[in-house]
Formats: sequence, structure tokens, C-alpha cells
Amino acid sequence: MAEEIQSLGHDGPGELIGIEYQESTDNEVRARVEVSDAVRQPFGIVHGGVYAVMAESICSAATWQAVHHEGKLAMGQSNNATFLRPITEGHVNAVARPRHRGRTTWIWDVEINDDQGRTCALIRMTVAVRPSP
Amino acid sequence: MAEEIQSLGHDGPGELIGIEYQESTDNEVRARVEVSDAVRQPFGIVHGGVYAVMAESICSAATWQAVHHEGKLAMGQSNNATFLRPITEGHVNAVARPRHRGRTTWIWDVEINDDQGRTCALIRMTVAVRPSP
Amino acid sequence: MAEEIQSLGHDGPGELIGIEYQESTDNEVRARVEVSDAVRQPFGIVHGGVYAVMAESICSAATWQAVHHEGKLAMGQSNNATFLRPITEGHVNAVARPRHRGRTTWIWDVEINDDQGRTCALIRMTVAVRPSP
Amino acid sequence: MAEEIQSLGHDGPGELIGIEYQESTDNEVRARVEVSDAVRQPFGIVHGGVYAVMAESICSAATWQAVHHEGKLAMGQSNNATFLRPITEGHVNAVARPRHRGRTTWIWDVEINDDQGRTCALIRMTVAVRPSP
Repeated sequence: MAEEIQSLGHDGPGELIGIEYQESTDNEVRARVEVSDAVRQPFGIVHGGVYAVMAESICSAATWQAVHHEGKLAMGQSNNATFLRPITEGHVNAVARPRHRGRTTWIWDVEINDDQGRTCALIRMTVAVRPSP
Repeated sequence: MAEEIQSLGHDGPGELIGIEYQESTDNEVRARVEVSDAVRQPFGIVHGGVYAVMAESICSAATWQAVHHEGKLAMGQSNNATFLRPITEGHVNAVARPRHRGRTTWIWDVEINDDQGRTCALIRMTVAVRPSP
Repeated sequence: MAEEIQSLGHDGPGELIGIEYQESTDNEVRARVEVSDAVRQPFGIVHGGVYAVMAESICSAATWQAVHHEGKLAMGQSNNATFLRPITEGHVNAVARPRHRGRTTWIWDVEINDDQGRTCALIRMTVAVRPSP
Repeated sequence: MAEEIQSLGHDGPGELIGIEYQESTDNEVRARVEVSDAVRQPFGIVHGGVYAVMAESICSAATWQAVHHEGKLAMGQSNNATFLRPITEGHVNAVARPRHRGRTTWIWDVEINDDQGRTCALIRMTVAVRPSP
């Protein structure tokens, strides 16, 4: 799945932050970003928007992969992030799990962990699924 | 205020997407991003994470500016984005308005508009305010 | 509109908390609940779920009213409440304003005020609009 | 824990909807509500606000129990519910799991299931923890 996700096309913001897809299954998609100044905000911690970019890239792509064979599109509808603990170095590790695969909506839970395995952010993504125009 | 926000320090993701702060007041902070492939996702529309980056940069910086004189820090606590209509070209125009200036929490509403003035996304940001360590 | 909303049918939770619809327009629906022990949580403040019930009742009903003539249903899809300041007495005053009237989704912003006009909670409701089965 | 939660005091809305606490642990708090017209909205499905009331009651009470020995209060700060599938009969079964136990904030994930074990709603609750006045 990791490979297919990357072949979806040019993901500008995903590339800007250096998202790397990792081994994934239908029930768990993993990706990570290496921490550098490019993803830090002024106080030296990873910018919260980076988690949102990761969640959006991962969940839209993975939903699209699952539904485009039926002539459908997938598009982010809401992205709700809660920040628990800052990350300052190492990697931002994301794991996304689908919680609902509906006809018009998919819901994903994304967990963001640091390299020590501590949960640093939780994101709930709603991806709208619609017929291709 | 625009000038002070930029002088906060290096905002990696804000710079990656090319955020430009505009004329602002205490009750309305404005910023925009020019649409290019750097901020588009694979289907040619602006990536939802870009709106989240903008909201996070604007609201954290503006809250920090208002509270750091009292020896306090400001840090994103939640970032809830709802997407209404895609943007494909022109600018992503953000206007952020504080809805609550609490002792421990500030709440902001951020509206994202396209160049035709249509509302394209709504973001509610919670910024935690804490004593500097 | 107030009258039509009430004629929708039996709204169990709305009635349990004593919701009263007030004068409304297409762009602003108002309702209130009188504060009594029935809506307080153990510490004597209004229970946060009461704001969610109010938002859900108001926004689902008002969306349904606007779309059922086209053979469509309206049903809550997400209800995101942020609590700013407790209410202990008087009324819980809600005003709901539609921010987006889409083909498949309506977005509402609901503001909760106390009798002194202070903003006490903000709710963003997404109401799904679907063809009647 | 179930017993202690009930001894917290009078929970008006929790009682209105008939919340029953069930066997719980520090990592999993369970409660349910029997479906009747009292919790249904006009179309015969359980009102979305009922899930919010359940989440708020459970998470505030369970957080309070864990922190009040240190002279602290617990109070709902945000309640974000996503609805996946309607419940029409049987019980609304809630299971709440703490995802973060911070010094100033606890985060809970609440899953709502029907009697067939299908996930019907997902709620993320933020509970603020503050020193008692």
C-alpha cells in the first residue's frame, strides 16, 4: 500500500515536510517525517500543522485507494487534531487506522508518536467519498 | 501586528507554504498563501493541511504576542478544521478572530476564503496559555 | 420558523431539557433552556452535554426544514463543542447560524450565551443532507 | 469505580437520560442508556446529544475521581462527537478510555456501540484539570 500511495500523484505539502510512507496494511497505514527546522515552529517544537498535513495526506490517499475502483473520489471533510506533548527531535511517527468505512464517509483515527513511543497528538479525520464527476 | 508576528522567530512550515502576514488588529489577524503546486494535493486542490498550518501559525503567534509580556507561553492545544469548498488557484486568504481570551486558554475562529470571497474552510483553534518555565 | 421546528415531531432529549424555540430567521435560529437542577452537573454548573443537545436539536431541525421539500433528510454528522465559561443560573441562550449550505452537508455555528450576554460555549455542527430513502 | 462515580452528586442530564454505570477499571469506564422515546429525536433514532451527555458525564466524573485527591477540579473543555450509524433500539453502550493524563488536561476517547457491537459514534473529550479554588 505504501508504494501505491506515493504513486497517487504530486502531494505538494506532503513533499515539503518530507513524508515517508512505511509498511502498511488495510487496517493500519504508517508514515513518518524526520524532525528538522523545516517542520519546527518558532519555539523549537514540531509545528502542529505538520500533524494535520500528515493525517490529511495519509487518510485521503488511503481512502482514495480503497474507493477509486468503484469510480469514487475521496476528499478531506474535517481534520480534528488534539496536541498532547511536543516533539522536538527524531521523527514524527504517524499511524492511521480506519474506524468507519461508510458509503459517503470514512472516519480515521491517527496517532502521532515520538521515537520513544509516547503519544504526542491524536487526529480524527473525516474523508468524504463521492462519485467521480 | 503583522510585523511583530514575523519577528517571532523561524516558523518552518509557515515559510514552506509561503505565509504572508497582512494588516491586522487585535481582533482580526489576516494572512494569505499564494496557490502553487507546493500547496496542492494530488487532485490539484489546496491540501487541507495547509489551512491547518496557517491557523496554527497565526493563532499561536498572535496569542503569544498578547501574553508573553506577562511571562506566559502560548501553544496550540487543538486545531479543528472543516472543509467546505476546494480552492484551486489564486490565494488562500485567512482571517483569524479571537473568540475567548481566557487565563489558560484562548479560542480563535479562522475563516479561509478564496479570492472571490467564498468561505472554503472554517477552523477552530484552542491555544493553551501557560506560565513560561 | 420557531413554530415549524416544534411541529417536526417528538424530540425526546430536547423536551427533557425544556428547549424553547424563539423568534428565528433563515440566518439565525434562537432557542433557550431555563437553568434548573435538571440541566446541572454535580458541581452546580450547566452540563456540557446540554449545549450539545441544544445544538443538535436546533441545527438538525432547521436544516431539515430547509431541505425536506426537495425530498431530503437531515441528520447530525458531527457536533464539536468548546466550553469557555460555566453557566450556573438564568438561561442557556443559543443562537445558531448556518455557515455553509451544501448539497450534501450543512455547517452551523452555534453560540451559547448566558443572560449577561457572555459567550459560554461555541459549537460547530455538521449536518448531513441525504436523499430520503 | 462505577459506585464512586454515582456518589459524586446529582448529575441532572445524566439522570434525565437514565445513564447506568457499569463495571469499570482505571483504563476503561463503561455506562449505558436504554433506548426509549426519551432519548430519540423526531425521526426515531437516538439523538446525537445523548452521546455527548454520556461522554461528558463519564469523562468528567472519572477524571475528577482520579485528581480530586490532589485538590484538583475536573471540567469538560471540549466534546467532539462524530456520528457513524444511527441507533434505534436496545441500548446505547459507551466505553471511555483515557488517552492522556496530563497535569492540566485529560483526553478521553469514547466509543458508542449498539447492542450488536457496531460502532455508532466516536467522541473525543478534553477535560481540563485545575486547582480547586
